[in-house]
Amino acid sequence: MRGKTGLGPKIVVIGAGAFGTALAAVAAAKADSDVTLLARREEIAAECRRSGRNEAALPGIPLPGGLAYSADPAVLIDADIVLFAMPSQEHRAAARAYGASIGADATIVTCAKGMEQATGRLLTDVLGEELPGHRIAVLSGPGFAADIARGLPTAMVIAATDMALAKGLAAALSGPTFRLYPSTDRIGVQLGGALKNVLAIACGIVEGAGLGDSARAALISRGLAEMSRFVAARGGEGDTVRGLSGLGDLVLTATSHQSRNLRFGIALGKDGRASGGGELVEGAFAASVAGRVASDLGIDMPITEAVAAIIDGRLDVSAALERLMSRPITQE
Amino acid sequence: MRGKTGLGPKIVVIGAGAFGTALAAVAAAKADSDVTLLARREEIAAECRRSGRNEAALPGIPLPGGLAYSADPAVLIDADIVLFAMPSQEHRAAARAYGASIGADATIVTCAKGMEQATGRLLTDVLGEELPGHRIAVLSGPGFAADIARGLPTAMVIAATDMALAKGLAAALSGPTFRLYPSTDRIGVQLGGALKNVLAIACGIVEGAGLGDSARAALISRGLAEMSRFVAARGGEGDTVRGLSGLGDLVLTATSHQSRNLRFGIALGKDGRASGGGELVEGAFAASVAGRVASDLGIDMPITEAVAAIIDGRLDVSAALERLMSRPITQE
Repeated sequence: MRGKTGLGPKIVVIGAGAFGTALAAVAAAKADSDVTLLARREEIAAECRRSGRNEAALPGIPLPGGLAYSADPAVLIDADIVLFAMPSQEHRAAARAYGASIGADATIVTCAKGMEQATGRLLTDVLGEELPGHRIAVLSGPGFAADIARGLPTAMVIAATDMALAKGLAAALSGPTFRLYPSTDRIGVQLGGALKNVLAIACGIVEGAGLGDSARAALISRGLAEMSRFVAARGGEGDTVRGLSGLGDLVLTATSHQSRNLRFGIALGKDGRASGGGELVEGAFAASVAGRVASDLGIDMPITEAVAAIIDGRLDVSAALERLMSRPITQE
Repeated sequence: MRGKTGLGPKIVVIGAGAFGTALAAVAAAKADSDVTLLARREEIAAECRRSGRNEAALPGIPLPGGLAYSADPAVLIDADIVLFAMPSQEHRAAARAYGASIGADATIVTCAKGMEQATGRLLTDVLGEELPGHRIAVLSGPGFAADIARGLPTAMVIAATDMALAKGLAAALSGPTFRLYPSTDRIGVQLGGALKNVLAIACGIVEGAGLGDSARAALISRGLAEMSRFVAARGGEGDTVRGLSGLGDLVLTATSHQSRNLRFGIALGKDGRASGGGELVEGAFAASVAGRVASDLGIDMPITEAVAAIIDGRLDVSAALERLMSRPITQE
């Protein structure tokens, strides 16, 4: 994967939020890099260019001098690698807005964790529909943007349908403290990222209801077992979610109070039931989508179903817990 | 598994520490139970009998009225199930002290997490040597004694060489909020319990050195991958450590500051190197044993080796980190 300019591959990151900025910063820190951060508005690009920081997204963190900033989709034309670093629900609109500017040979990488709410589709499927003919990869796993941008040690996964491509992308996007592990399981890596939010809500419920650390540990173990079943039924590899994407990401989300999904769950656990108001988080939608698909495919997902039922107001926390604890015990 | 008295199986728990008392309390809470907690000294047994509590081990937690207390090994003679609930390093001595009192048909269950330091042997092997002819099972996984005794939801694993025995033990020892999942992988379940202490030290080092939550999540994911390789090489099932014993237990240990192994690691991470003084924790011995065995068997365990080298003073934290981050990247 060599760039057209004689430097490394030309990389454009669409989305100047915290995560996109962090990924662009790591890639741009290399000697031979050619990386542009594509913002929605020229004021943001100009301010980053002027200050060498993206204060709104990553306050106080200096960005590498070699990183370019733009708001002009024309920079996409000769890009080798295009990272989609906007939220899941904005992927389809972004593909439509920027698709015409992306060269035919470019590899697309989705960096969001979620499924399209309206359709329940994976983001690689959404991008495949909107950008036919492109190779589409997935970047996911446990990494806070600020940790990545600050150069703290971080490991994530990059998945593509073929291993050579995954390795090429890993080489292009890794840095000295940011390790990308290649994988060929796009389905497992994506579902790991999406479903860990459901378990993060469940961990929050357990914490909010005061059920103890042992209960949370059991929940995470048993929750991963059901994520694994779901991934296998959707055509991925069940073991993938026991790696960085899935398990690793869940550990990060469920044990750090930075997570909105965890805080959403804590509030549910304290109240004992859904209040009917308030904003839903990504994991709430994922619970509903996964619960529906699991039921259609006949997959046993008691924890996901309990979370979906609590959010919908069909079950209160103590009834859900009683139901979970009285299920027949299967093997580990 | 029916008891000789017409009640449930006769259960004796050797060891009136927090964990043994909690397991005895759960088993004794059932209607048809016959459970005795065997303490080392009669004063302890008498005090428990008088107060209905074990204040030294589980302060403030009332124990079920049906639980019997004794310090007389003679209670072992007609026991169907004998739980060894003393620390790992006391298993051999306890087997020698109590072996003559245990009936020939009794099933032995080890409830400790560790390997014998002097020999590197698993506790089932230690008990097998000292108590030949007995069926020997393993109880392990994520459960704080106080959570179990208070009736908070907890799930652990019970492993025996045959599934029917594991299920029988699970039925005898479970309670309404204490779920035991049966397994046939005694090796994987034991190593999950022993090796998670090594990773808990590693998590502490990362925390103490201020490397961030993302680094800890990556460490847990990659650490489980190496635990899994080690278990497979020792004849267990690699996936076992991705369940309740291993992963679940690690989540509990690494995210709760009740763990001595975690606190030991935090101190190492803050100092940047081993100070040479102070008391070693169980995970420090496990790191040394596992590192030696891994090297003999040719198993790649970079995290375990780094922890062992830091504890031994052969490597400081920053050199260990640099070495870990510069390894060639393999697949997820």
